[in-house]
Amino acid sequence: MKLLEERIARDGVVKAEGVLKVDSFLNHQMDIDLFNEMGAEFKRLFADAPINKILTIEASGIGIAAIAAQHFGVPVVFAKKSQSINLDGDMYSTRIQSFTHGKVFNVIVSKKFIGPDDRVLIIDDFLANGCALDGLIEIVESAGAAVEGIGIAIEKGFQPGGKNLRERGYRLESLAIVESMDPGTGTLTFRDQWPSEGDAQVFGVVETIEA
Amino acid sequence: MKLLEERIARDGVVKAEGVLKVDSFLNHQMDIDLFNEMGAEFKRLFADAPINKILTIEASGIGIAAIAAQHFGVPVVFAKKSQSINLDGDMYSTRIQSFTHGKVFNVIVSKKFIGPDDRVLIIDDFLANGCALDGLIEIVESAGAAVEGIGIAIEKGFQPGGKNLRERGYRLESLAIVESMDPGTGTLTFRDQWPSEGDAQVFGVVETIEA
Repeated sequence: MKLLEERIARDGVVKAEGVLKVDSFLNHQMDIDLFNEMGAEFKRLFADAPINKILTIEASGIGIAAIAAQHFGVPVVFAKKSQSINLDGDMYSTRIQSFTHGKVFNVIVSKKFIGPDDRVLIIDDFLANGCALDGLIEIVESAGAAVEGIGIAIEKGFQPGGKNLRERGYRLESLAIVESMDPGTGTLTFRDQWPSEGDAQVFGVVETIEA
Repeated sequence: MKLLEERIARDGVVKAEGVLKVDSFLNHQMDIDLFNEMGAEFKRLFADAPINKILTIEASGIGIAAIAAQHFGVPVVFAKKSQSINLDGDMYSTRIQSFTHGKVFNVIVSKKFIGPDDRVLIIDDFLANGCALDGLIEIVESAGAAVEGIGIAIEKGFQPGGKNLRERGYRLESLAIVESMDPGTGTLTFRDQWPSEGDAQVFGVVETIEA
């Protein structure tokens, strides 16, 4: 999605160790007009999928999922992170390793809100190693529901999460895939997902930004 | 807002010790059509206020704020909860006591995203004791920004947060105010905020639900 790539190139900040800060428009301050365009694009990409529910995970996925849900006309369920061990039996739960925060937490979804009739689109802001998505997929499949697709705002193409999910057969659409980024120069390169639209070699490098 | 009161009466569950579960439509599963009506109502209530930013707090406030923002045409900032002590100087932070979770946590907002030019509408899902709102107000005012208003989905009128905020002069609008609730009978009574619309004595009791 060119609009998102251009915004990342303009307002994203490349930090050391694979960190890309997009907190001015995506995951701290939220540009709702941009989210609306992203929601429309998710709908375009998954137009043929019989999605009846969107699942995301707190906190950064919620805004994107809520706005996208308007394009699908479906409710959103957000999985909750919990450090407590006392989970009652009415919850699907799984454990997720967070590399960003360096800890393990439980992710829970009430059994009331996902079941065998659900055809689920999973939405999140970032995909890197894919640990959070693995947990959400496990919850959907434990419930006997179907993962119709996975919609991501920004995939880090240089980390293995996206590749693994595609190899496992999931329908994964990332609106922007960062192929590489250089904190020294601030350069970001995007994977060319739409080669027909122009010169694949050049299209990827949208802009050089200051780190 | 009658639509919300009716939904609370229909799908809310009254638990012991002042707990009202509305996780089927508000803060775990999210009914986006309802959120859209709530957003329109917030816009109606604050139509004359020169709001240029919405501030909320993760996680349950985000979906409501994101949808409401479409009616105001402004960005949303969500405050983050953090248990870490290592906060850099680029953040406004305050400490909030959570009664629900029985612990104290830091709430942080980047200084980049709120400043003296901002006229802020604070949005959250619940108002009970008001500790979270006190923290958000403190952050807005520390930034030199103005609190134009506070929009709440469900206020617990039998807890002191709303009364305190109104006495301090804040413009607070709660779409539904639960005046009392009885876990034994499941009865909910709403404060009559629109006496002209009908019989105040009767209007409050929308429905009796099973606890």
